[in-house]
Amino acid sequence: DAASEQGYEGTVSFITEVVDLLLEYLHRINDPATRCWTFTTLTSCGEALSHCLEIPVEPRDLEQILSDCKETLKYAVKTGTRASSTSSRRALTSSPWLREWLTAATNTNMLFTYEIAPVFVLMEEVTLQKMREHIGWESGDGILAPGGSISNLYAAMVARYNRFPEVKMRGMRAVPELAMFTSKDAHYSVKKSAAILGMGMDSVYLVDTDNRCCPSTGAADRTRPQPRSGALLRQRHRRHTTVLGAFDPLDAIADVVRAGTGSGSTWTRPGAAACCSASDTATCWPGCSVPTRARDLLPERHIGLLQGCNGMQADYLFQQDKQYDVSYDTGDKSIQCGRRNDIFQSLAVLEGQGLREQVDYLIDLANYLCQQLRSVARLRDGDGETRLCQRVCFLVRAEKFRSMKPGTGEATAPSTSEGADDGERTTMVGYQPLGNLPNFFRMIVSNPAATEADIDFLLDCIEKYSAEIFDDQPDEAGIGGGGGPAQ
Amino acid sequence: DAASEQGYEGTVSFITEVVDLLLEYLHRINDPATRCWTFTTLTSCGEALSHCLEIPVEPRDLEQILSDCKETLKYAVKTGTRASSTSSRRALTSSPWLREWLTAATNTNMLFTYEIAPVFVLMEEVTLQKMREHIGWESGDGILAPGGSISNLYAAMVARYNRFPEVKMRGMRAVPELAMFTSKDAHYSVKKSAAILGMGMDSVYLVDTDNRCCPSTGAADRTRPQPRSGALLRQRHRRHTTVLGAFDPLDAIADVVRAGTGSGSTWTRPGAAACCSASDTATCWPGCSVPTRARDLLPERHIGLLQGCNGMQADYLFQQDKQYDVSYDTGDKSIQCGRRNDIFQSLAVLEGQGLREQVDYLIDLANYLCQQLRSVARLRDGDGETRLCQRVCFLVRAEKFRSMKPGTGEATAPSTSEGADDGERTTMVGYQPLGNLPNFFRMIVSNPAATEADIDFLLDCIEKYSAEIFDDQPDEAGIGGGGGPAQ
Repeated sequence: DAASEQGYEGTVSFITEVVDLLLEYLHRINDPATRCWTFTTLTSCGEALSHCLEIPVEPRDLEQILSDCKETLKYAVKTGTRASSTSSRRALTSSPWLREWLTAATNTNMLFTYEIAPVFVLMEEVTLQKMREHIGWESGDGILAPGGSISNLYAAMVARYNRFPEVKMRGMRAVPELAMFTSKDAHYSVKKSAAILGMGMDSVYLVDTDNRCCPSTGAADRTRPQPRSGALLRQRHRRHTTVLGAFDPLDAIADVVRAGTGSGSTWTRPGAAACCSASDTATCWPGCSVPTRARDLLPERHIGLLQGCNGMQADYLFQQDKQYDVSYDTGDKSIQCGRRNDIFQSLAVLEGQGLREQVDYLIDLANYLCQQLRSVARLRDGDGETRLCQRVCFLVRAEKFRSMKPGTGEATAPSTSEGADDGERTTMVGYQPLGNLPNFFRMIVSNPAATEADIDFLLDCIEKYSAEIFDDQPDEAGIGGGGGPAQ
Repeated sequence: DAASEQGYEGTVSFITEVVDLLLEYLHRINDPATRCWTFTTLTSCGEALSHCLEIPVEPRDLEQILSDCKETLKYAVKTGTRASSTSSRRALTSSPWLREWLTAATNTNMLFTYEIAPVFVLMEEVTLQKMREHIGWESGDGILAPGGSISNLYAAMVARYNRFPEVKMRGMRAVPELAMFTSKDAHYSVKKSAAILGMGMDSVYLVDTDNRCCPSTGAADRTRPQPRSGALLRQRHRRHTTVLGAFDPLDAIADVVRAGTGSGSTWTRPGAAACCSASDTATCWPGCSVPTRARDLLPERHIGLLQGCNGMQADYLFQQDKQYDVSYDTGDKSIQCGRRNDIFQSLAVLEGQGLREQVDYLIDLANYLCQQLRSVARLRDGDGETRLCQRVCFLVRAEKFRSMKPGTGEATAPSTSEGADDGERTTMVGYQPLGNLPNFFRMIVSNPAATEADIDFLLDCIEKYSAEIFDDQPDEAGIGGGGGPAQ
């Protein structure tokens, strides 16, 4: 490209300009007055960035590339701003940043083998081992997956393979009808896994929950018969939702499973971002790792489960005639072939930042948010709010909010003027329906640079915008009260 | 973390040190004398990096983090060195590098929605459109996937869903027995997809190939009956291997499919890294994109196929009550939930570098490699070599190489002394078995900074090491001649 044509000197000067651009960006996102995003319509955004969205045939010069990138950053959501909280992806801090840069520089393919990625294969091993220690497993296996949904897919796959290894060669026709049980509020990737694996979404049985905002004791899916274990599981399967981030009582479920169906025919797995020593597999964050481990199996067997399930022994990649222990050629355990090197950055999350201190700080901040929620007049005073670690969920005490059905076309996201980066400071926070309650806020306090003042600002924004949206509009006909029991 | 505690000034000084580290690294990989890797045993590598592989409870200071990273780079494979060619992942050049850095800085989750990733959602759209144009499709759909294997999984999923949409809810039990046809040398992810999807690897029918090194006209899998279309396809399915990178005659296959089984009941798809306008889906590199398109379907239907197949309409993420066209909330088409932002870098590959010029240069270089192969006495003179774009495959004319069976435990990788980064310059090149021929070299000329001198160096290395390994060792009993017809 243009820089490499100019040789090393050209590259140095280009990188210097890139660093200036990055420092300017850093400076902006560290300024509390910076808006994390200004809503821009698709059309306006497309027009403003038309040059950056073009794919020219001829190479662009470096100045133009830099200027395009600068323009791109202007319109992108500034995830790193202190009050930004919509995405559960946290803002990066220096050490992971450094590691991401070096990852780009090395551009290693985690593809498959020790010889291609010697250092990173070892890093993956120690990181998975550390995660298993945190969970409480003495031994096991694991793989890094590109996100929680793929991790859930892995978990369902190894569960199926563990009980019915013939499925790998002969497919679902060769095995009895299988069922998955999960909470009716569980992450959608559970159903998606069933669809992908050829089990079908109908094979997923949804168990009722008793969360604080939407308690219920009846059986889900009364219209169709459920396997006997479903009734057993339903008794114990409580407080389990993706939005609220509740935990399953996995030890109790494991007891039911053993009593009801005999050991070996079921597999327990917690939700995407939690884990427990009673489970068979788990997904650990940060780093999108999925250490897997099969309880009640012989160590030899469970350690080989991912390999057995996913291994294809492609001899053009996984040659056996090597000078080292080829069990370190881990790629055959993956459902991917080439993989991006994600471990170098994941390790930093565990290593350089004092993970424990940071989580403690974020939980303190989440507690502060809970206290403020109770003391702010317009918000529900406590009974609509739940907290799990850094996650705080709450309803807003605006009359029209309470009487709205989910998805009725009302705008609930803060409405702001167009144009990037101008105007007063603002924030983003996720919202979603919860059962038959209207849009509900889910705030994940995940930025260690945030302070109590940023939390106050967030609440001020919610008060201000909910007043603008709901109290200043006339009543609309046809919007019935959808309030649940907690109302 | 430590840097953010020191505030913006601390971050600036940290970044400055990181840049120094990167420039030093760049300088090294640009030096033709730098070894791309020195083989280090697992034990030695683990010992040398023991500090970097530890996961401490307390935060490390920034100096320590920098020093750990420096040590890590020392032992990592230097993919960017000019003669390095094992990985099909190309070395990054300045513009993608810049974009990777900015991606780390913005840390945007490509998760799902326009509002979370406004700029990048638009970039994904224009990139996929450009790729469809290259293929020759007037309209269509697509998604970015984390690698070619997952792309192949997507392709098999949408093919299945297209013909049997009931599979999503009711699983493989609800549909007739399905079959996939592919070359016996196709990428292993085809079989892997069948295993994942609950079809089973037995449902994959392998069709013989007639590539130059291993011609054969018999039917594969004679031991079991094949559907009638298999026999038809077998006639036309030629020159199709992952190692050689051959193309299928997709237009001819499409004709067979229509004649033999009626339109709509089959689905054609080229190998992972190629595409053609006669196919239904394709994987495009670089950028790991999988634009998908359903030939013979109504435009409305084929545009909605990914959404139909993978959509879960999770209302906690994909709210319908928004101020913009929610068809831009593309996450529901994906089998992932959170996705890394890979599009910003992919666009650079298409944009800033003059992709056409670069590919032309690399093909010239590959041609040069072919010429040199023919003129170097120790290598096969032409008939063992094939070239597809940047990919050159060749055999080495060493007596013991020819008589070796694949996977007999012989070391064929260049054996070097231990210790990172010292010693003379060396290189890496991929090798794999091909049919009943012994280890075979697959060189993908992918580094635009490489020159003819680097190609010469590669050939010198192969000559030198093959002589060391094969000609200086005594004959071993029991290694029979496995030579194919091309020998």
